[in-house]
Amino acid sequence: MSSPVVDTSASINARLRAASPADVRIADAFWEPRMRANRETTLFGQYEHCESTGRINNFRRAAGKRPGTEFEGIYFNDSDVYKWLEAAAWSLGTHPDPAVAKMVATVAEEIAAAQAPDGYLNTYFTFDKAGERYSNLRDMHELYCAGHFIQAAVAHKRATGGDALLNVAVRLADQIVETFGPGKRVGACGHEEAEMAFVELYRETRDTRYLDQAQLFIDARGRKPPVLGGGAYLQDHAPYVELSENVGHAVRMLYYNCGAADVALERNVPAIRETLDRLWADFTGTKMYITGGAGARWDGEAFGAAYELPSRAYAETCAGIGLLMWAHRMNLLTAESRYVDVMERALYNGILSGLSLAGDAYFYQNPLSDRGGHRREPWFGCACCPPNVARLLAELPGYAFAAGQDAVYVNLYVQGEADVDGVHLDVRTRYPWDGAVEIAVNPGAERDFTLNLRIPDWCEGAGLAVNGEPADAPMTPGAYAAVCRTWKDGDKVALFLPMDVRAWQAHPHVEAEFGKLAITRGPLAYCLEAADNPGVDVWDVAVAPDAEWSAEFRPELLGGVVALTADAAVADASAWAGSLYRPAPVEPVYGAARVTAIPYYAWANREAGPMTVWMNVSALIR
Amino acid sequence: MSSPVVDTSASINARLRAASPADVRIADAFWEPRMRANRETTLFGQYEHCESTGRINNFRRAAGKRPGTEFEGIYFNDSDVYKWLEAAAWSLGTHPDPAVAKMVATVAEEIAAAQAPDGYLNTYFTFDKAGERYSNLRDMHELYCAGHFIQAAVAHKRATGGDALLNVAVRLADQIVETFGPGKRVGACGHEEAEMAFVELYRETRDTRYLDQAQLFIDARGRKPPVLGGGAYLQDHAPYVELSENVGHAVRMLYYNCGAADVALERNVPAIRETLDRLWADFTGTKMYITGGAGARWDGEAFGAAYELPSRAYAETCAGIGLLMWAHRMNLLTAESRYVDVMERALYNGILSGLSLAGDAYFYQNPLSDRGGHRREPWFGCACCPPNVARLLAELPGYAFAAGQDAVYVNLYVQGEADVDGVHLDVRTRYPWDGAVEIAVNPGAERDFTLNLRIPDWCEGAGLAVNGEPADAPMTPGAYAAVCRTWKDGDKVALFLPMDVRAWQAHPHVEAEFGKLAITRGPLAYCLEAADNPGVDVWDVAVAPDAEWSAEFRPELLGGVVALTADAAVADASAWAGSLYRPAPVEPVYGAARVTAIPYYAWANREAGPMTVWMNVSALIR
Repeated sequence: MSSPVVDTSASINARLRAASPADVRIADAFWEPRMRANRETTLFGQYEHCESTGRINNFRRAAGKRPGTEFEGIYFNDSDVYKWLEAAAWSLGTHPDPAVAKMVATVAEEIAAAQAPDGYLNTYFTFDKAGERYSNLRDMHELYCAGHFIQAAVAHKRATGGDALLNVAVRLADQIVETFGPGKRVGACGHEEAEMAFVELYRETRDTRYLDQAQLFIDARGRKPPVLGGGAYLQDHAPYVELSENVGHAVRMLYYNCGAADVALERNVPAIRETLDRLWADFTGTKMYITGGAGARWDGEAFGAAYELPSRAYAETCAGIGLLMWAHRMNLLTAESRYVDVMERALYNGILSGLSLAGDAYFYQNPLSDRGGHRREPWFGCACCPPNVARLLAELPGYAFAAGQDAVYVNLYVQGEADVDGVHLDVRTRYPWDGAVEIAVNPGAERDFTLNLRIPDWCEGAGLAVNGEPADAPMTPGAYAAVCRTWKDGDKVALFLPMDVRAWQAHPHVEAEFGKLAITRGPLAYCLEAADNPGVDVWDVAVAPDAEWSAEFRPELLGGVVALTADAAVADASAWAGSLYRPAPVEPVYGAARVTAIPYYAWANREAGPMTVWMNVSALIR
Repeated sequence: MSSPVVDTSASINARLRAASPADVRIADAFWEPRMRANRETTLFGQYEHCESTGRINNFRRAAGKRPGTEFEGIYFNDSDVYKWLEAAAWSLGTHPDPAVAKMVATVAEEIAAAQAPDGYLNTYFTFDKAGERYSNLRDMHELYCAGHFIQAAVAHKRATGGDALLNVAVRLADQIVETFGPGKRVGACGHEEAEMAFVELYRETRDTRYLDQAQLFIDARGRKPPVLGGGAYLQDHAPYVELSENVGHAVRMLYYNCGAADVALERNVPAIRETLDRLWADFTGTKMYITGGAGARWDGEAFGAAYELPSRAYAETCAGIGLLMWAHRMNLLTAESRYVDVMERALYNGILSGLSLAGDAYFYQNPLSDRGGHRREPWFGCACCPPNVARLLAELPGYAFAAGQDAVYVNLYVQGEADVDGVHLDVRTRYPWDGAVEIAVNPGAERDFTLNLRIPDWCEGAGLAVNGEPADAPMTPGAYAAVCRTWKDGDKVALFLPMDVRAWQAHPHVEAEFGKLAITRGPLAYCLEAADNPGVDVWDVAVAPDAEWSAEFRPELLGGVVALTADAAVADASAWAGSLYRPAPVEPVYGAARVTAIPYYAWANREAGPMTVWMNVSALIR
């Protein structure tokens, strides 16, 4: 019954089919507590926010149940309810819970009741605003909201098997196709989202009108004359197939890429396929934070130019999730592990930082340095990020494994069990704290297939044994180690991914990171935070590229993390007191200190203070 | 008849009175051509823009001369006409021109005709919008526009002696005082400007109601409950006298400081006086670009946090002018030359860059690095900067000299003649290209007074002789060299300001400038631009702190500039091709090149290409 989050079972160009979340049972110390908090706390808290802020009342109002009341909040607030619904649906699929089911039923009922007789659904454009439907696609997020509802309805169907919401979505989609379908009005939403939603609805219904519609939405951008104003901010300056740079609003651009990848999975459109490669190279080669953050600019929540990656990153949590969704689709399209490397980078760093350790507060922006003023908040007026995190956590099991042609893929290393293409996998690991991964492979009957184990791009010197014998698969960082054999129940795979601490430099055109380095261990980017370094301004810390970092798991720290410590130099910035510019060369005066670094995702969970991912390089302390 | 731009003749706390523009005749090769272009080209071109964009028609419409038409453009467009008028008025004062006079008369007549019977004046809030007067002070810039008109009218009076516009301004000011005066409505404009305007109107009329009003506008901010929403963006989060940081929209903050300085010149308000000192230290110590640019952030056109100075600076041209106006007032208040140092830094760099060499195109933002995409434009929808540059150039002579108690001050070194407090000065210099300054001092009858010559803060080793004899005045950078003697006609002062090329480093908390240096020569910041460095990506250039820069005046280059050349290293960035992060340490591979730097203000006047003020430091080529 259960299906993957992105269901490529029948996609003509898919190399992989992701696991269904219901077929994966995560049972580790890292993700399981977070997912449990998501189910037991976050879903309830966000539901309350949606109620208390009028988001659900807007549906009741649209259904005529609240005469005399006004629409509450921002015109695209429906989408937050839909993302919450998607999260709750997947949660029901993996962890049935009557209380969650009751909330889902309530929301589903209110949504269905708010649908107009012709299928149209948007609570802002009702009553006095009904005449303005689709009158301002650029700004009003109408099709964006519709896309999120369609995604939620598809998720509800895939996770629970229920048709009720999917039927509402089909009626809405039909209304949109009647308006924008082939030969009808040319238009697209200022905020991409409907593209991937319509492809998913096609996958669920096999109604090609929806796939056509997704492609029409992509084709509507970049026209002359433009239908969305022609600006790069919302990717209307050029057709998708002519793009060579990720530009404009980052979440929009990344959702656009997701939609394009979804179309590429279903149809042979070489120009789209090539564009995806160009844009991926552009992003990973010039616009990706080391945390997997995307979208450097606060002005316009936008991508910067190539190498424009200031530590005061915008790096919206939603953009990180958009990147993860794009990377996931690219992996399904290509069966190349490098996309999962980026997915993992975003997941463990720039996305996870968006959520407090307690699971009840969120970052909108995920900067790489701070002086202590940037703190998580329990909700936002524009609350796109919190329910986006919730749906990601609910869907997470589905991102860990995939199946190909006579092949099983392990993409994320998480302790737990999974059934992938009939193969039962039992994974034991303390990842991301430890690089030892033991996998018991149980295919039932003996079977020939390839077990593909992702060797992360950060990982040099990986080792692999099957049933105690070294495997001869190449252990190439950034590729899969492929073990092709006849598998039988009880086969044991032992993978070792050395988690050396590594120091990284950025391309010299990254102004903010010149003369600096960042350290990672395994998939985690680290940072220096004031709370661990009393008496030291972490912005003044200078480290050597070859500094010896000691790694120690500290169960009491931040819910249990591997902390890193090293000898470092601390520049005496007081010599600069009052002066902003001094004649060069200014030779810094260094003191010595033992400094402690923590995983970036965990910062800002204690007392406020300076934090930095990038550390100055000291040549003096080599 | 003529008066200074900021007239502190009767200000109780003024140590200085600036020269009147009409008493200074600039006759050099640097400013005179720019001022002439301003008079002969810019004023006419901007007038045409004001006509063609409906800005002047808005006045005609408000006067009832254009029945059936709509208000054109942005609601605060009146202010552009007023700033143009201020520029034209000062131009008439120094260079009478019938064609300019005719334009001024036309504009003055349209403005007067647009004034409502009760004195109110704003062309947006007329007819159907008349009922909304002063209903949204936070956003609608009504008092900002009024302030610019009052400034223009005061300028017209001071420059030409005519009363007609001043009478209109008085009626407008009276209407505002009737609305917002003591014991009446508490309010202020979301965009500061009226504060300094009302002080100037007080200075011109000696009507203390206007000075009271200026102070009331300052006191209206930061209240609990707030009258402007309480946000830091428009400086409503705390009372002025509690501020310790320049925050929010940079032009607003700087204009606020100007208004506060104007009040401090007229009244003993110790808390304001102390706040000015705190904010000056905050700005110059943590928020000032080496170009004198102000306001780092593109989001909100705002000040960043301390040391947040990315090369992708916003540094709005108007903010540079706001800084100059603030610094000028601080100099008048204190007679300290350090304020003029900052004024000069802004004037010769981050303001002048706002204007093309041809005088017909403008930067809104003045970034310190670029890849070639940032170009000047002839006009903007929000056209605050162009007429602001025009009025500055028209007023410029008045900023060069000042008088104190038995003291004459030379603030800017510009070839020309001036009459300051009865002393005729004849200045010969090729500044900013050459540091030799000869001044013939002609007091008429013999007089005892102190001649104060500003020794710029960048200038080490200045020398001074009077009538061929070394003067014994201390030559302290950042202070005035004071020559106190009995002066007689024909006395000759010879000042020598060594214009060594100097390399500067920024405070290590300035992330963008870590491991980099900037070079200056005299008051000018330099940059590397692609046009002078064929075959070299200037972003890859690395220089040694002690590199020997050769200075050469090149008359054919960019209207005549001193270009600087040095041996440098050029990193081979191609080794990074495709990779954004590489394991540290990455040792750069350098080639050698002779590189050429030009004054920052002159960039983007030729073919587009990379530019940078901050250059990487190479330790390898020492």
